[in-house]
Amino acid sequence: MVVRQNHQPPLPTVTKSTILTIGFTLLLKDKQIFKGEPLCPKMRTPVPGPMSKRLKEDLGKIQECGAVEFFADYDRSRGNFIFDVDNNLMLDFHNQLGTNPLGYNHPAFTEVLRNPEFQSSFVNRPSLGLFPPRDHVRRLKTTLMSVAPQGLTNVHTFSGGTTAVEFGLKAMFMLYQINKRGSPYPTQEEMASCLRGHKPGTPDLSILSFNNAFHGRTMGALALTHNRWEFKVDLPQPNWPVADFPQMQYPLNEHEIDNIKEEVRCLEMVKNLFETYKKNGSPVAGIVCEPIQSEGGDNYASPIFFQGLQDIAKENGACLMMDEVQTGCGVTGRFWAHEHLYLREPPDVVAFGKKMVIAGIYLRPELRPQQPARIFNTWLGDPAKLALCSAVLEVIEKEKLVNNAHACGVYLLTELENVQKQNPTVLSRVRGLGLLASVDFPTTKIRNMVVERLRELGVNAGISGKYSMRVRPTLTIGRQHVDIFIDTLRHVIKDLRFRRAFDD
Amino acid sequence: MVVRQNHQPPLPTVTKSTILTIGFTLLLKDKQIFKGEPLCPKMRTPVPGPMSKRLKEDLGKIQECGAVEFFADYDRSRGNFIFDVDNNLMLDFHNQLGTNPLGYNHPAFTEVLRNPEFQSSFVNRPSLGLFPPRDHVRRLKTTLMSVAPQGLTNVHTFSGGTTAVEFGLKAMFMLYQINKRGSPYPTQEEMASCLRGHKPGTPDLSILSFNNAFHGRTMGALALTHNRWEFKVDLPQPNWPVADFPQMQYPLNEHEIDNIKEEVRCLEMVKNLFETYKKNGSPVAGIVCEPIQSEGGDNYASPIFFQGLQDIAKENGACLMMDEVQTGCGVTGRFWAHEHLYLREPPDVVAFGKKMVIAGIYLRPELRPQQPARIFNTWLGDPAKLALCSAVLEVIEKEKLVNNAHACGVYLLTELENVQKQNPTVLSRVRGLGLLASVDFPTTKIRNMVVERLRELGVNAGISGKYSMRVRPTLTIGRQHVDIFIDTLRHVIKDLRFRRAFDD
Repeated sequence: MVVRQNHQPPLPTVTKSTILTIGFTLLLKDKQIFKGEPLCPKMRTPVPGPMSKRLKEDLGKIQECGAVEFFADYDRSRGNFIFDVDNNLMLDFHNQLGTNPLGYNHPAFTEVLRNPEFQSSFVNRPSLGLFPPRDHVRRLKTTLMSVAPQGLTNVHTFSGGTTAVEFGLKAMFMLYQINKRGSPYPTQEEMASCLRGHKPGTPDLSILSFNNAFHGRTMGALALTHNRWEFKVDLPQPNWPVADFPQMQYPLNEHEIDNIKEEVRCLEMVKNLFETYKKNGSPVAGIVCEPIQSEGGDNYASPIFFQGLQDIAKENGACLMMDEVQTGCGVTGRFWAHEHLYLREPPDVVAFGKKMVIAGIYLRPELRPQQPARIFNTWLGDPAKLALCSAVLEVIEKEKLVNNAHACGVYLLTELENVQKQNPTVLSRVRGLGLLASVDFPTTKIRNMVVERLRELGVNAGISGKYSMRVRPTLTIGRQHVDIFIDTLRHVIKDLRFRRAFDD
Repeated sequence: MVVRQNHQPPLPTVTKSTILTIGFTLLLKDKQIFKGEPLCPKMRTPVPGPMSKRLKEDLGKIQECGAVEFFADYDRSRGNFIFDVDNNLMLDFHNQLGTNPLGYNHPAFTEVLRNPEFQSSFVNRPSLGLFPPRDHVRRLKTTLMSVAPQGLTNVHTFSGGTTAVEFGLKAMFMLYQINKRGSPYPTQEEMASCLRGHKPGTPDLSILSFNNAFHGRTMGALALTHNRWEFKVDLPQPNWPVADFPQMQYPLNEHEIDNIKEEVRCLEMVKNLFETYKKNGSPVAGIVCEPIQSEGGDNYASPIFFQGLQDIAKENGACLMMDEVQTGCGVTGRFWAHEHLYLREPPDVVAFGKKMVIAGIYLRPELRPQQPARIFNTWLGDPAKLALCSAVLEVIEKEKLVNNAHACGVYLLTELENVQKQNPTVLSRVRGLGLLASVDFPTTKIRNMVVERLRELGVNAGISGKYSMRVRPTLTIGRQHVDIFIDTLRHVIKDLRFRRAFDD
């Protein structure tokens, strides 16, 4: 199976007529509609409805659950449509924080569950670092290695993206120390002192991350996360360098020079932080960034910025890690989002998760650990999730879903731009790459009202950062789903009640 | 379903005759043998055999995998017996680092997989903090809440034990800061400063842990872990206090006074560390400990020690977290190991994982977060694992497996003590609680040889710390499995070749 598209030619320039052709093809082939997928939303109550409210109250008795939006009926949900427990049927453009790859109850998943070959993966969870199953190597090769980013020859699996990020950090720290001591073998003194967390075994190193970034919420990952106080406040953290991520002005073609200036400013800041932390005695061992900041505002930067980051890392003997937990698995129209960045060398670490079903890291060979059990935990992922991942990759290949993400993404973006043009006081900064599209509203309050009203009308979308609404469709999205979203968005914006609130 | 046994009377004093009775009962009822479970090991090649070696070489091409012991054939494995890919059948007393609750291919698990009620949990993974499934509250109540430690009214689920520990730390930090500021609401300044990791939003707080402890390997969990340099070296860590965990002398009844002195010494050290870190400006917000140090040497302490810890925590306005990831789920003869410790108050946090299939934390109501999304991540566990957890708890209740763990544990310990009595130069410090049994050997080399030789003869056991062999049977273990283990161990020790190596 080869769904990798590293060497593909640059994507064709999109014109109105290609969009129409793509749309028409989608419609004709009806590829993305699987049996039983509803055709449109159908709402019966506000959301959350009475049943969701009752269940949330019940859940609240045994855990803080203030973020719950509604309770879902997954048995009845199909494809891109989710049923809630109050019999409301919504088009899902949020998809479990973008983790749903193929839609609800996709037949490829139910087949995995029924397939006797995979049965034992679901009922016997191995410690993969000690007693891997018979077919583990073959499975890794035909799944994760078949889509490995160019130049990244090693892979390790984990249960979630955050743990993957944490082990990516370790790989970078270990390489930094190996280079520093000129040997892969720690000294006796290092081995002894590290057990109490003392020098020299526990070195003073740092990782550089970006304002508005999100990389997870365990202590190491949280040290790289800077998007919401709810995630950070009251928790001790290492004092690691945080650079500004470029804040681009839109439309891009009207702000080319300002945007380049902004990227150069941020690169200068990164350079200065490297210097400062070297002087402070806590040198930067690696840079971690998302190709698109997908939680802290859907922020994009150009290839120039990322190429500059890689240059700075190289000059300082540090690594570059791309966190593709949210941007990987084809959503951007290429399998990995960093393929859009034309880096001169592969990144040192790529973290994945979410739509891949299983999480993990790819490593360049230089970062391969030099001793056993350095990248290791109890389960090291889960063959049951790897089995589902294989289904995802097979469907992606068979149905050309990376191309679909590109085509539908272009259609979605063009339609969003049209809505923006017609409503320039309400929408701004429409942006996107593949299916990761977003748009800003004048205030957080208005953004939240729009998202809420969309849901009342049957479209479940998400938020990102302070002012952005984001959409996170599945890979099986079709033109018809974009149309429903856009029509509903137009309706919400035209809605008089909303207009009045906006004017208040 | 109530498998909780908090209020049970103290366990009866065990005499030879009760052991015989229990053993006899087990044998008579044959409760623990499920269909198709083999009766004894059958070895055909050394372990790892040629096929395992070939597969390991293959796996080595795409990841560092030096810790892999053998490749397993999980399809053919049954109950307490594991098949490797070279057709060797072993009694498994290691069980995937103690994570296997009921044995391989347990019918209760395959039934869950076939049950239409659970189907959609396996193919639709929700973001539980946003869109939980219809039956989620009911499932939590009938599973995790039915075995909640006394006084811990809140529960949060995660994918693995380490993440659970990390969020346990957060809960303790958050409570500490709430008490300090006298309000659950952070100030504007705190909200803003925490995003860059600066004070006052990012406070300087610490967590106290113990020498030889293991709590996981993400940055926060790793800061509490002090058992192997492979886990720690080259990685930056917060400088948190590490106290000595008591090193008890065995047999306990011959060293009562020395052991009490040792525990008092460690408690004094804890007290002093609280003082030191308060003076340093990095006060201790919580103590984290395992009821039994199950990775760093299978180290036990008496209830006096743990009660002392709780007293010190209370005096200093800090919390006490028990990490029961390895000791929970009935293995010690009570559902939670800390029930053996007769703490005067419930611990503030209890973390679980491994045999529970799903991981998570229980919290006292005081530690319930005061804002949404404070204890939150993308998936927050997995209903598919919760479904398997429900099967574990049902089987535990139906087959009285907590009692079985106690009865078989007593039998196992008595037999191990007999072997020790007959080989006092080879075995020492036989110890255990329920099924968590271990024994020391004179050197690491001899310990490793014994474990290796045991496996060659068909018994897969584990190691803990420097000198200890540990066993981690499933909850469905019967007297017959103990007999196989003990007979094989006797054989290994008598083995002349081993004797010679030992004399060298």
